[in-house]
Amino acid sequence: MAGNKMKVDQITSMDEDFAKWYTDICKKAELIEYTSVKGCMVIRPYGYAIWENIQKELDSRFKKTGHENVCMPMFIPESLLQKEKDHVEGFAPEVAWVTHGGTEPLEERLCVRPTSETLFCEHYKNIVHSYRDLPKLYNQWVSVVRWEKTTRPFLRSREFLWQEGHTIHATAEEAIEETEKMLNVYADFCEDVLAMPVVKGKKTESDKFAGAVSTYAIEALMHDGKALQAGTSHYFGDGFAKAFDIQFSDKDNKKAYPHQTSWGVTTRLIGAIIMTHGDNNGLVLPPAVAPIQVVVVPIAAHKEGVVEKATKVCETIKQLGFRAKIDDSDNSPGWKFAEYEMKGVPLRLEIGPRDIENNACVLVTRHDGEKEVVSLDDLATKIDEKLKAVHDGIYKKALENRENRTYACTTMDEIKEVLAKNGDGFVKAMWCESEECEDKVKEITGVGSRCIPFTDEKISDKCVCCGKPAKKLVYWGKAY
Amino acid sequence: MAGNKMKVDQITSMDEDFAKWYTDICKKAELIEYTSVKGCMVIRPYGYAIWENIQKELDSRFKKTGHENVCMPMFIPESLLQKEKDHVEGFAPEVAWVTHGGTEPLEERLCVRPTSETLFCEHYKNIVHSYRDLPKLYNQWVSVVRWEKTTRPFLRSREFLWQEGHTIHATAEEAIEETEKMLNVYADFCEDVLAMPVVKGKKTESDKFAGAVSTYAIEALMHDGKALQAGTSHYFGDGFAKAFDIQFSDKDNKKAYPHQTSWGVTTRLIGAIIMTHGDNNGLVLPPAVAPIQVVVVPIAAHKEGVVEKATKVCETIKQLGFRAKIDDSDNSPGWKFAEYEMKGVPLRLEIGPRDIENNACVLVTRHDGEKEVVSLDDLATKIDEKLKAVHDGIYKKALENRENRTYACTTMDEIKEVLAKNGDGFVKAMWCESEECEDKVKEITGVGSRCIPFTDEKISDKCVCCGKPAKKLVYWGKAY
Repeated sequence: MAGNKMKVDQITSMDEDFAKWYTDICKKAELIEYTSVKGCMVIRPYGYAIWENIQKELDSRFKKTGHENVCMPMFIPESLLQKEKDHVEGFAPEVAWVTHGGTEPLEERLCVRPTSETLFCEHYKNIVHSYRDLPKLYNQWVSVVRWEKTTRPFLRSREFLWQEGHTIHATAEEAIEETEKMLNVYADFCEDVLAMPVVKGKKTESDKFAGAVSTYAIEALMHDGKALQAGTSHYFGDGFAKAFDIQFSDKDNKKAYPHQTSWGVTTRLIGAIIMTHGDNNGLVLPPAVAPIQVVVVPIAAHKEGVVEKATKVCETIKQLGFRAKIDDSDNSPGWKFAEYEMKGVPLRLEIGPRDIENNACVLVTRHDGEKEVVSLDDLATKIDEKLKAVHDGIYKKALENRENRTYACTTMDEIKEVLAKNGDGFVKAMWCESEECEDKVKEITGVGSRCIPFTDEKISDKCVCCGKPAKKLVYWGKAY
Repeated sequence: MAGNKMKVDQITSMDEDFAKWYTDICKKAELIEYTSVKGCMVIRPYGYAIWENIQKELDSRFKKTGHENVCMPMFIPESLLQKEKDHVEGFAPEVAWVTHGGTEPLEERLCVRPTSETLFCEHYKNIVHSYRDLPKLYNQWVSVVRWEKTTRPFLRSREFLWQEGHTIHATAEEAIEETEKMLNVYADFCEDVLAMPVVKGKKTESDKFAGAVSTYAIEALMHDGKALQAGTSHYFGDGFAKAFDIQFSDKDNKKAYPHQTSWGVTTRLIGAIIMTHGDNNGLVLPPAVAPIQVVVVPIAAHKEGVVEKATKVCETIKQLGFRAKIDDSDNSPGWKFAEYEMKGVPLRLEIGPRDIENNACVLVTRHDGEKEVVSLDDLATKIDEKLKAVHDGIYKKALENRENRTYACTTMDEIKEVLAKNGDGFVKAMWCESEECEDKVKEITGVGSRCIPFTDEKISDKCVCCGKPAKKLVYWGKAY
């Protein structure tokens, strides 16, 4: 399989240079292309199709939980951005400013939304008057802009695609419930759809979203042992309502401030998929979001009847409801194997003259290379089974990686040693809740707080840093 | 039905003030809300759901014709925008300029895309090298920004949502075929989905898209007799390819310039729906894009079993695949009737104690107020029939309006007279193809050229303006 070798040699090995391996996949699997706009990328058809599948899955979950889609303007007037003090401090340093419309300078400059709390608040003020108007459960699918210095495809780009949920409720309890509910929706989505295990938890005070009372997050561990924040959900209390003077008449006809939340995931999830499941042959896609679930490759395609039969088989698979594609180009089978391995297609179906004689074909699973000869009569069941096995298999592998790379430590020295010995990973260690210790852990050991898991685990009584009584267990790690 | 009256009185009559009637519907049907960003609006859940249905219908038609979705950056560096001379002249005066990222001035200012030809060209240059790479058939669903002076919801806003198709081909013939194919996709969509008749034609030279060799458009006539450009499709020849130095090796291994197209429709279509089908009771929605196709209103809801039965009926309708909603709020039936008339829901299902006794309900069609008592056993067939009848009924009404308001004229005086007598509409008149006459017709009669229809009709030998030999029949009109 010379074709195969040739192609595979084109990407850097992940053990040699993980960062280069990552960008190689982004390019060679045709997920993205760079542009002359620094930090902005073209998401190519194959990459965008993954996002469309993510959208479809998430959107139906949002609608099932009662949310409606809306669309806010992409611009925020400077004065509007400034209304909530913490929020503007957090975002103003990294927004893109529009100062001119055509040849004329604007009276007030506008930023391109980095996030839309302020716009939603302005809207709520117009439409929320009575308890009957509550709750409002909104979401939007848009792009946002944050003027980052260092950028990487999907992980950190100046413009990125995301959904931002925004809700407003009569009571704090209801808003907190919503914040938690949506974090669970994200976690279930990551595990059930992306085959990516996540840790659910709360961010520390210093790591909260600008303007939030509390921020929840799901944290995943990438193949190289670095942590990736895969989604966040924020509880705002009534801080924004007060800043924007949003009030409603409650059931007793008294004025009250409503409580808000917001939550979001981004195209970063595509980066998470790459770094959770990918290998040295390229991308490995979870079947639920793979643009092509089964690729059909005819073997000895020049022989009579092979392409015709392969085409028929591909049509059958499509009619069964799977996303399938036949590659009947004049490239060699070896080239095609490597190409669809690079693209992470979960299942390859090979069919040649001998298979046709036997009313059979060969199914090869991408993640482990396992081959099985199956009867063409069993395709429906077999493909379904194999796609489920791929999902379970890559989930298990990712979970094992996380478990192997999660270290419980009780002293600073232990953290340093374990990381020096094993490389990056999650460090579980107790914390006294002081920002000083949080900063010191990062400074001395290199790992920052990722989240305080909801599990309420306890591995010691003392803060890993100061030795004073510990209050919480924290997951620490180096983050993307 | 006092409730009914009260609500209906809230919108301005279309005969009194069509513009006010229009914006009243936008607000009262909860399609949009204004924001503090001039010329930008919030598209509210009900309005956005219409757009989602439009997207779903169009996207499947794009995919069936072989197009793939991508996502380009929202920013265009000034130097990139300037590469094609006509294009920059057309768009630079109306773009929003980003000049700062955070606190730092940018080295080169960026405009927020008004359209993305330049970005697609930059991308093509990276990925198109051989005839094997062609064609590329792309589309994206994004928002764009044009800094308009006068704005109106959906019809002309500074930011609007749209899809922009961009394709690149080996030959001119293939690109021209694509341009025409996509215009036909739009026309069929408008007629089959939006129940809106359109005229297909070519724009005059002076009215072409900036940078195009030729621009095709579909033109619809609104209820008030004004024309609305509902979609456009552009053939670019190899002008952009030359400006951006995009070349490919053809089958004989010679370098050649590829040929391009682009085509788009926008949220303007929602404005077209309002002004084509709406009436003095509010919106009238084509069933194929109505967020709610059937609203169930319980009558005498306080009586035992009514709400339960109505809820069951609504569930049944949903299971049949229709978009249905029950309003079991404590508002009066009259209030509800007016509310869902305002929102343009095609079918209302009323069900009260007597109906329940008779295993029946009342179906009322929004556009003509026709009522029919139908058996609950026949719901599937009846609802399907009625929704089709609504589609056909509103299409017919719109077509009649257009036909009644289309005037064939052979002299300038005739144009002036017929418009003065009958009000705005389409004027069909012959033209010699000189820009001077085109301008003069507009100056003297007030109607501009809308398009040269593909039908090749001929109503006289002479230009309506100069009397010299006519070359084309033109549809003239006042435009939104």
